[in-house]
Amino acid sequence: MRLRRKPWIDTAILDYADFVTPLGGDWAALTGHWAEAFGREAPLHVEIGVGKGDFLTELAARHPDVNYVGLEMQQGVLYFAARKAAERGLENLRLVVFDAARLTELFAPCEVDRIYLNFSDPWPKARHAKRRLTSPLFLARYRTVLKADGELCFKTDNMGLFDYSIETMAAEAWQLSNVTHDLHALAEADNIMTEYERKFSARGAKIGRLVARPSVEPV
Amino acid sequence: MRLRRKPWIDTAILDYADFVTPLGGDWAALTGHWAEAFGREAPLHVEIGVGKGDFLTELAARHPDVNYVGLEMQQGVLYFAARKAAERGLENLRLVVFDAARLTELFAPCEVDRIYLNFSDPWPKARHAKRRLTSPLFLARYRTVLKADGELCFKTDNMGLFDYSIETMAAEAWQLSNVTHDLHALAEADNIMTEYERKFSARGAKIGRLVARPSVEPV
Ligand SMILES: C[S@@+](CC[C@H](N)C(=O)[O-])C[C@H]1O[C@@H](n2cnc3c(N)ncnc32)[C@H](O)[C@@H]1O
Ligand SMILES: C[S@@+](CC[C@H](N)C(=O)[O-])C[C@H]1O[C@@H](n2cnc3c(N)ncnc32)[C@H](O)[C@@H]1O
Repeated sequence: MRLRRKPWIDTAILDYADFVTPLGGDWAALTGHWAEAFGREAPLHVEIGVGKGDFLTELAARHPDVNYVGLEMQQGVLYFAARKAAERGLENLRLVVFDAARLTELFAPCEVDRIYLNFSDPWPKARHAKRRLTSPLFLARYRTVLKADGELCFKTDNMGLFDYSIETMAAEAWQLSNVTHDLHALAEADNIMTEYERKFSARGAKIGRLVARPSVEPV
Repeated sequence: MRLRRKPWIDTAILDYADFVTPLGGDWAALTGHWAEAFGREAPLHVEIGVGKGDFLTELAARHPDVNYVGLEMQQGVLYFAARKAAERGLENLRLVVFDAARLTELFAPCEVDRIYLNFSDPWPKARHAKRRLTSPLFLARYRTVLKADGELCFKTDNMGLFDYSIETMAAEAWQLSNVTHDLHALAEADNIMTEYERKFSARGAKIGRLVARPSVEPV
């Protein structure tokens, strides 16, 4: 999602400071202290690449017992998620303008119970494979911050990325479960659509979904 | 592979009785006694759906230290595999005309080290899913006869069957490894082509390959 840079957002996002840590904001104090930041002990679920936040705000509204953190590297996109969080008064959701490449600086080892990746940028060229959010390097970061029984939930319409992700997770000894190549063909009442999911499934694309656990040590 | 029934084969196959147990032959004595049948203790590797045997005869020739059993339910096809085995004098290979649905009658629990499935019939219709050699029922049979650290090696050009197999294995808590959606794009010098693999890859089809271990208990 490439938006034109909108300078007004850098100011406007400050209106939602209760929900979002903007670009240049002080996130370092949160590392290892997320329970304190939310004012309670609760499972910690993290979405990476929140976009405009349809998925995460709805998820947080449905599960008040979970602490949610949403990461997105584009402030111009995350602004819209922050506005939605504020409008719904979601006290269990915290957004941060953040590049997931630095994930291990934002969470202590084993601090996270679940990670969501939705419609991550596919980076189809082989020479860009390292940038994919399911590359071995990113999987190693997830393994570090996830609890031993934690899980990674991934969906995408891009079958090239989906196949790559299965191959990479298997190679890195993650345990796969709940794999489907056509999510919408299943009657899963609790599926929450993302912006991209709505757009691509309307065009007839199939959606792949999987869950992976880092339980096994990498080989 | 549907061949017209060739009555001469029922007689001709008896020429290769040192290599093949024909239809109606006495296989029951072998169950749990494969090491004795081969006259030595060695890893036991089984191919299901041998076809005309290009893969298995070459594999057996390359690995004299392994005991190989090949199963195929069509005698009219397995005959050609038996002839190849006899021509090459492969003492570490034994073929049986056998329906893998009865696998647990032919092998004792934990008797098998590795199972190969190559280009298994895809049975694309949902109502035939149970016949697929990677259905939950077949996976349960493989789990029974395989050792705890045993493995199932699968390749196919049929991406519908490949996706289904990944989904089913993940659901049945098998640990996947060595997954690729384009085997021939890898420089794997030790890949041995099957008859179907040769035919379909010549037409430009991609070959999927995976290895799965039953190490984890089913959920
Ligand atoms: C294709 S969009 C999908 C947005 C949303 N998840 C959806 O499904 O509609 C991918 C998003 O991930 C964000 N993103 C990509 N790499 C990221 C990274 N390393 N850290 C944080 N966000 C990232 C992009 O800025 C973009 O907004
Ligand atoms: C599509 S052919 C592939 C043959 C060979 N593996 C190849 O790759 O060229 C599948 C073979 O599996 C055999 N087969 C299918 N179901 C079987 C079963 N339940 N037990 C034994 N053989 C089976 C069929 O008879 C057929 O010869």
